[in-house]
Amino acid sequence: MACELCDQDDAPAIWRDDDWRVVRVADAAFPAFYRVVSRAHVRELSQLSRPARHRAIDLVCAVERVLIERLQPTKVNLASLGNVVPHLHWHVIARFEGDSHFPQPIWGMKQREDVDAAARLALDLERLDAAVAEALRAA
Amino acid sequence: MACELCDQDDAPAIWRDDDWRVVRVADAAFPAFYRVVSRAHVRELSQLSRPARHRAIDLVCAVERVLIERLQPTKVNLASLGNVVPHLHWHVIARFEGDSHFPQPIWGMKQREDVDAAARLALDLERLDAAVAEALRAA
Repeated sequence: MACELCDQDDAPAIWRDDDWRVVRVADAAFPAFYRVVSRAHVRELSQLSRPARHRAIDLVCAVERVLIERLQPTKVNLASLGNVVPHLHWHVIARFEGDSHFPQPIWGMKQREDVDAAARLALDLERLDAAVAEALRAA
Repeated sequence: MACELCDQDDAPAIWRDDDWRVVRVADAAFPAFYRVVSRAHVRELSQLSRPARHRAIDLVCAVERVLIERLQPTKVNLASLGNVVPHLHWHVIARFEGDSHFPQPIWGMKQREDVDAAARLALDLERLDAAVAEALRAA
């Protein structure tokens, strides 16, 4: 069966190793939104070995820490859902009090109009990507 | 500042140790919904030490595995959001193709009416709680 995330395995990434790749999601409403994607087609987190799931959460944490340090978000949201694309991936999203959905999850009801979300970030996205990549190399 | 999850620290739980407690969330639409809650008031996952975050994910995985083994859900959804209550907690939710929101996240747009979600589970909730507790004791 075709899998979108398997198909994108070779696409440009912020960082990758043999088991994981990290991309920034192009979402105008939530510009500081990264995805930590398993390179193997695994459905659920619990299918990973213990060391592999620890590695996964270390990578998620490395991304989260950069978002917190560089952007001072109101909150970071983490999720592994995969209802539509059942291939293990983690969403790591910096959330801000004024963003279009806060305090709702990004999948919830829109709360307000929010233009230029990227312009409000403390760092431009290229520099943020570079900081995320550096943290992942050290993770 | 008052914190709902700190206030509930003594409430009945499926299982607890010194650092974590696990409760089942009373949600008629998503009956197989557990929450792994930090007993310390911590805001973000990355504030935990490395061993502590590994422990967190091991507990989340233990719950997930029971849901998969006992209920054969279409997918398990994991999330740590905390926009409303910024006290570290993980949602672990068994999702089914016919549930009210599938394939949307539970915070998304309702897709259909779904009555008697609990009755469709392969196991009654008391037995499911017991299986979750047993897995957590072994984690």
